[in-house]
Order: sequence, then structure tokens, then C-alpha cells
Amino acid sequence: MTDSITDALAYIHANQHRFVAELGRFIRFPSISAQRSHAGDVRKCAAWLASHLQEIGLREVKIVPTPRHPIVYASWRYAPGNPTVLIYGHYDVQPPEPLEEWHYPPFEPIVRGEHLYGRGASDDKGQMFVHVKAIESHLKTTGVLPVNIICLFEGEEEIGSPNLQSFLTSEPHSRAADCAVVSDMQIPASDRPAITYALRGALGLELEVRGRQQDLHSGVLGGAIQNPLQVLCEMIARLHDAQGRVCIPGFYHSVRKWDAGERAYMRQTGPSDEEILSSAGATSAWGEHGYTLYERTTIRPALTVTGIVGGYQGPGAKAAIPTGAAAKLDFRLVPDQDPREIDRLIREHIVQLTPTGVRSRVRTHLSAKPALIDRRHPVLGAAARAYHRAFGAQALFLRNGGTIPVANLIQEVLRIPVVLMGFGLPDDRIHGPNEKFHLPNFFRGIETSSLFLAELGAWRGERRAWTTTVESPPRGRADAA
Amino acid sequence: MTDSITDALAYIHANQHRFVAELGRFIRFPSISAQRSHAGDVRKCAAWLASHLQEIGLREVKIVPTPRHPIVYASWRYAPGNPTVLIYGHYDVQPPEPLEEWHYPPFEPIVRGEHLYGRGASDDKGQMFVHVKAIESHLKTTGVLPVNIICLFEGEEEIGSPNLQSFLTSEPHSRAADCAVVSDMQIPASDRPAITYALRGALGLELEVRGRQQDLHSGVLGGAIQNPLQVLCEMIARLHDAQGRVCIPGFYHSVRKWDAGERAYMRQTGPSDEEILSSAGATSAWGEHGYTLYERTTIRPALTVTGIVGGYQGPGAKAAIPTGAAAKLDFRLVPDQDPREIDRLIREHIVQLTPTGVRSRVRTHLSAKPALIDRRHPVLGAAARAYHRAFGAQALFLRNGGTIPVANLIQEVLRIPVVLMGFGLPDDRIHGPNEKFHLPNFFRGIETSSLFLAELGAWRGERRAWTTTVESPPRGRADAA
Repeated sequence: MTDSITDALAYIHANQHRFVAELGRFIRFPSISAQRSHAGDVRKCAAWLASHLQEIGLREVKIVPTPRHPIVYASWRYAPGNPTVLIYGHYDVQPPEPLEEWHYPPFEPIVRGEHLYGRGASDDKGQMFVHVKAIESHLKTTGVLPVNIICLFEGEEEIGSPNLQSFLTSEPHSRAADCAVVSDMQIPASDRPAITYALRGALGLELEVRGRQQDLHSGVLGGAIQNPLQVLCEMIARLHDAQGRVCIPGFYHSVRKWDAGERAYMRQTGPSDEEILSSAGATSAWGEHGYTLYERTTIRPALTVTGIVGGYQGPGAKAAIPTGAAAKLDFRLVPDQDPREIDRLIREHIVQLTPTGVRSRVRTHLSAKPALIDRRHPVLGAAARAYHRAFGAQALFLRNGGTIPVANLIQEVLRIPVVLMGFGLPDDRIHGPNEKFHLPNFFRGIETSSLFLAELGAWRGERRAWTTTVESPPRGRADAA
Repeated sequence: MTDSITDALAYIHANQHRFVAELGRFIRFPSISAQRSHAGDVRKCAAWLASHLQEIGLREVKIVPTPRHPIVYASWRYAPGNPTVLIYGHYDVQPPEPLEEWHYPPFEPIVRGEHLYGRGASDDKGQMFVHVKAIESHLKTTGVLPVNIICLFEGEEEIGSPNLQSFLTSEPHSRAADCAVVSDMQIPASDRPAITYALRGALGLELEVRGRQQDLHSGVLGGAIQNPLQVLCEMIARLHDAQGRVCIPGFYHSVRKWDAGERAYMRQTGPSDEEILSSAGATSAWGEHGYTLYERTTIRPALTVTGIVGGYQGPGAKAAIPTGAAAKLDFRLVPDQDPREIDRLIREHIVQLTPTGVRSRVRTHLSAKPALIDRRHPVLGAAARAYHRAFGAQALFLRNGGTIPVANLIQEVLRIPVVLMGFGLPDDRIHGPNEKFHLPNFFRGIETSSLFLAELGAWRGERRAWTTTVESPPRGRADAA
């Protein structure tokens, strides 16, 4: 292994400039999956990506149509007996608006200092390109890959991956994978690489309260009739208690209690309250009493009201009792909460909270289970060693409060471990204006991926052992402690 | 008087068709004061109105410029010794949007059945035109008016009358008025004419809560950081108690307590709870315990949240803790609440309600005092007799929960009684799509106004008596009981 990886790393070093130029070409496609007017750009981006994968030497390159945006699929399976790694990424991007807040046009990528600016630079074109270039570094130096590879790059991640599950269940090759790698997340700092071993689930709901069919004059009738917007505010206020807990009967019933050992591990490895506040630009904490902020955002569920629409939104005033109002509720769930069960509890409770004189309705936009990966799994150990060598620093094992539905999906559908291997930084401004990617992380990321594939390839004989390990814990109960 | 009023009433009857056609021409001007693109239409409408007033025989017709939209002013002062009546109206209209909900184009007035449809048909072009045609009915039959007249028709009512007070205080002629008439309101039904003797005041505020400068990820940080939108909902929920009372210390301190006699009068004359609910299309009541709905909306103050803007407003979900949120608060005030004092109490209380981790700010959009007119004033008696004769039904004396700032302004600046003489109906859809005016009310209104002017003219000798009456009660304390 040593010789071939040395060649691969030398190749990466020698080709850094070209890699940045190629990533720039990838970013120039405005592959905005949410905006129908950009459907053609999404297709062009998929075509470019597919042809690029062919150029670097991958085989079976396919552009697989879905009802909306295609999946780009490629593989290399000529390492018999070696494990098969599924590399997941997405080539679609968030809308760039508001455009006026960008210092450079979002689809005209530009290098400034150590950063490459552009929409998708970090999320996720840059991070998925890390693996593409790592694959190239092996194929162009040794002509072979240390492991079998399946690349699955979707064009619908930013719109909720509506067609991914059916692809995973119907595509027989993806079932051949022994582990998956997803790079669509951040590490705490460029000298603090990290592997994410837990993600919260999500339940996105819309709570609507409606009164009568037409606006009523707030002068003539103010003080005599239920106001749906007032009712909505009161319902929202009653969803938390004074201790920052969510007030829904049964909500905490299945929340897993972690032992002192796991909490001590989290204290040692995770960010302090001060670090979390500082990263948020906040001066004071809020939330469930009795837990650190790292715990509140990872092993405890949370409810955030992310939006309200109700009544008059323009300048000045309009004298009307609104006909209705709606709030967007973003629940984050933890093991062993089941989004469907929580959805049911919320709906029951909302019925209880609804006063006479108005009607309420709950709609579910999004439902994703939490993901938990055994941090002692040998595949994560291989990833940690690769990070250590590329970044010159010990990789942390961290929980993250966010949700990456594909992580749970891969675990549930393919029953394989997922390595959540981030190369983004907290200040990459993903989803915001002036998104950027830290180029030293890009280069170290390619090295990390290249080393990770080599690490896995060195296990030729042990593949059966670790593919068995992951299937032994009860479903959805992989104990990370 | 009998002969001349008979001629005037006959003239009205004979010219009904022409009056409707002229009102139609008036409505065709899209005199939308709020939309700067229509400033030219507002000016053209003022010019048409001024020339029409000249045609019917009024004198001193002027178009008085203001910083935004002109006031149309006219007078006829050749009845020495007789009282002078100030007729107030406004020729500007609300924006017609949403246009797609109109069955007929808003500025192409059309008669269907008993109604004239068009923006401004009821509010206020139709109702002010009632008085224009009443004046014409006297001038074109007898050549003179039974009283002196000052017409003050503004073009800025729908944007809050920003230049009316300075006009009233600087225009010496308006100071010559002995009473004022405003027709910009509704009566309960076409067989139930009514004179409004009380209006609530208004205080329009915007309450803004802000957190950090940028959106934070609701997955990564949800549960650890104050959410300004959640805080806003909790603050709003805490502004009412379980008895439907407004929870602001001192808020009820100056609310006038009415004696059993006034409350009994209100019970006899005013709408029942059932009537109010039915007019609102509501099935259940809400509000301050211990009061009827008519009382809750007239002699008791109220707070309505009329709008909230905060977080993501689009379809689907966005995983962000919003940076801030704002609510529009519509307070309705009653004697003897002073809007400035209430404004101060609210601001103090909001400071108390604001938790650490966020900042709050209150902005005042609108502030208007309540208005109260002695319902036993002889001028109101004259109006009631005119209504009785024209409508064939006893006029009611009613309180109204709405706010007409000009009513208090005229009382405070000119110190004269205001006759709030409505001809609109509750289903006129003012401010909404398909606004209309009930033509039988239009014709009876012209008769009422014509009779009212004749009634006042018959009092030649008594003018001193009733102009003294109105000035005797303490300022802002005219006892309506």
C-alpha cells in the first residue's frame, strides 16, 4: 500500500491548481434544483459530471432520470474480495438569492486568499469533488483502485431527495456496498477534523389556525371575536414550559437516556457552552435545563418555530382581524424517537390546545429519523487514521444537531455503516450569500479520501468481519456509547 | 321651510338617474392616495370634483395643495345669522387589490340590482356625494341654502390624513363652522338609520424582537439559543389574561366606568351578542368577561394582533432560527384613555417582558383619540328627525368600535359637535373587492341631508343656544349618558 499511496499523494500535490480549476467549472453550472427554470442547468451539470467521471477512469457511468432531476451513477468494481464503498454526494445547489448580498456573482467562482467563492463551493460540489479527485489520484497513478467504488451523486438533495429511496431500493449495485461515505458537513476547524457519529432526526410541520372566511374589522369587532393569529401565538407559547422543555404529552417518552460514560465522553470531545455561543454570535444560552448546550443540540430533542405567516405583512397597519395564520414548526428528534409517533402525539396535543371559535390543522412537510453510527466501528477508525495523516491532527468523534436524511436512509435501506466525513468549515456560509470552500481543506480532503480508500483496501481479508459488526445491534439502536 | 324642502325633495326624486351617472363619473377616477403612481389620478379627481362643486352653485371653490394630495374646499355663506355647517368627506380611495377578486373592474362603476359597484362607491365618494347632491337640491330649486356651508373634501384619508390638522388650524373659514357632518360610516340596515355618538381611539404599534445578525441553523443550534420568533409569540400570549383582559399594568386605569343608565340604554338600542356574532359570521364570542359584545367593542378597550412577519414565509420549510420577528398590534382605546399615556405604558411593559438574549423595539404607526358626542345635542336631534322623515324609521344612537380620527380632530381643533351620519351598509365591502353602495340609501341619504340642512336653517334664532351647549362639558368628557 505504502508505495501506491505515496504516488497518489504526490499526484494530488502536483495537480492542486488543476483541481481548483475543474471545481470552478463544476460550480459554474447554476444547478438550482428548487427553481424549475433551472431544470436545464441541472441536466447540463449532470452531463458534465458524468463525462468528468468517465475521463478520470470510472466505468458504468450513467445519468439516471428521475421524475425531476437525474442521478449520476458510476462505479469501478475490479478489486475482487475487497470492500465496496458507496460515495454519496449531491451536485444540486441552494438558490443563491438574495443576489445583492454576494460580493462576487454566485456562479462565477473566484479564488480569494485561501477560499474559493461560489454557490455550492462547500455544499456540496466541493466536498463531493474531494472524492472524485481522490479516485482520480489512484486511477491515474496505479491504474486501479484499492477498493470497489460506487458513486451516487444526486440532483435533488436541496429539495429533500424525493427520489433517492426508490433508487436505492431498486438499483441492485448499490446493495453491493459495504459502507458509505457522505461528505456534506462541517468540521470544527481546519486543524480539528471530525467524524460525525450522530445526527438528529427532523419533523417539519405546518400548524394552521383558521377563523372565519373573511377579514373582520379590528376596530368594529376587536375584543369580541377569536383572533386566529392570537390563538396561534398562544398555542406556540404553550409548546414550551418555563424550563425550556417541549410541552407535548409523551414527547420525551422514547428519548434515550445516555449513561455517565457517554456524557463524560461528550464533555471531553464536544464544544463547550462558550464555544457554541461564540459560534452562534450569541451572548446567552436558552433551552432545556440540566443539559450542556452540546447535549441540548445533540442528545435532546428541540422545537424551533422557523416562520409565521399571518395577517397583514406590509408597511404600516391594516385594521383587520386575520382570517387565519400558520406557523412552521421544526422539531429535531433523537434516538429513540420515531417521527411518525411524535407526529401523532403533536397532532393529538394540537387538538387539545385549539379553543372554540377557530379550527386548526397540522400538515407534515418532512419527516426523517435520527442517525446513529457506532463510533467504534472499524470503518470509522480507518477514516480517523486517514484524517490524522492528512490533517496532522487527531480526528474528533462528534454528534451533530442537524439532520442528513440520506444517512439514516443508507443505514435503513442498505444496512451499512455511513462515514460522515466533513471538509466544510463553520464559516462556509452554506445556503447563504458568499458561500465558500477553504482550499487547504479541499486539498487535505482529497488526501484524506485517498488515504481512507487505501486503508479500506488494506483490509482485503477482514471485510466479512466488519460488515457483520454493523448488522448486529438492534435496528436503530446502534449503541454509540 | 315646508315649500322649499318640498321642491328640493321633488328635485331629488326627479334627478335620481343623473345623480347615479354623475357618481359613476366620480368613481371612474382611480384616486388611490396610497399609491404614488396614482398621484396624477388623485389630482384629476380633485379637479373634476372642484369643477362639479362650481357647477352646482358653490362659491370660493379652491384646490388647496398639501405636501401630497390636495384638499378640495368650497363654501356658500350667504345665510346671515344662520348656522354654518362644515361638511367633511374624502375623495381618495383604498387600493383595489386583489384585482382578480372583483367581479367588475373597480374603476368602471356598474349598476346591478339596487347597488352601484366600484372602488369608493361607499367609502367615501358615494357618501360625500350625498351632501353635494343635497346642496344642489336646494340651490337649483330655491337659489339659496338654508344654512351656510363649508365643504372640506380631502384626498388623504386613506393614508391617515397627514395634512388635515394643519389645514384645519390654518384655514380661518373652517373656524367659522358651528357643527360638522361626516358621512363615512355604516348604518345597521337600510330600515335602521343610525347616528354614531361614540368611536374608539386607536394606537397602532409594531413590536419587533431581534436576535443575532444572521439566521442560525435550526438543526445545529435548535434548543440552545433564544428564538426571536418564539419570544415574540410568548410576549403576545402574555398580553392577554385568561379573562380576555389586556395584561399591561395601568392599561385600564383611565377607562371610564359607565353608569347603569348608559349600559341599560346600550342594551336597548345596541345589537345583541347574537346579532354581532352573526354579522361577523362567527359562532362563538371571545373577550373580556363581564361585558356584552356591544360593550366589549365600544366602551371597553381591545388589543388585536393584526399581523406577524417572522422567519421563512415560503412553501415548505427552511431550517433557520430567524434573526428577528415583528408583530403589528392594533389597540382600540376608549374614554378617558390617552393614546400617548397608553403608548408609554406599553413600551414600559414590553421592556419588562423582553428576556435576555434578544432585543425588542416598539414603533408607533398611528395614534388617535376616542371621540364622544353628546347624543342629546340639538344638532343630533335635527339629524335624527331628518333621518326619520327620509328613511321612515326612527334613527338609533349607536356607539361604534372603529376609529375615525377626523371626528376627534374636528372636536378638538374646532370645538364643534360632529354629526356622524352614515349611509353605508354593513355588506358594502369597503376596503375589499366588490365594494358597492346601496342606491336606495344614496337617494334617501340625499333627502336626509337636504332635510337636515333645512332643519338647521329653521333655527335661525337658536344658533347661539346650541353652539353654547357643546362647549360646556369638560374637554373630552362630553357625557353621553
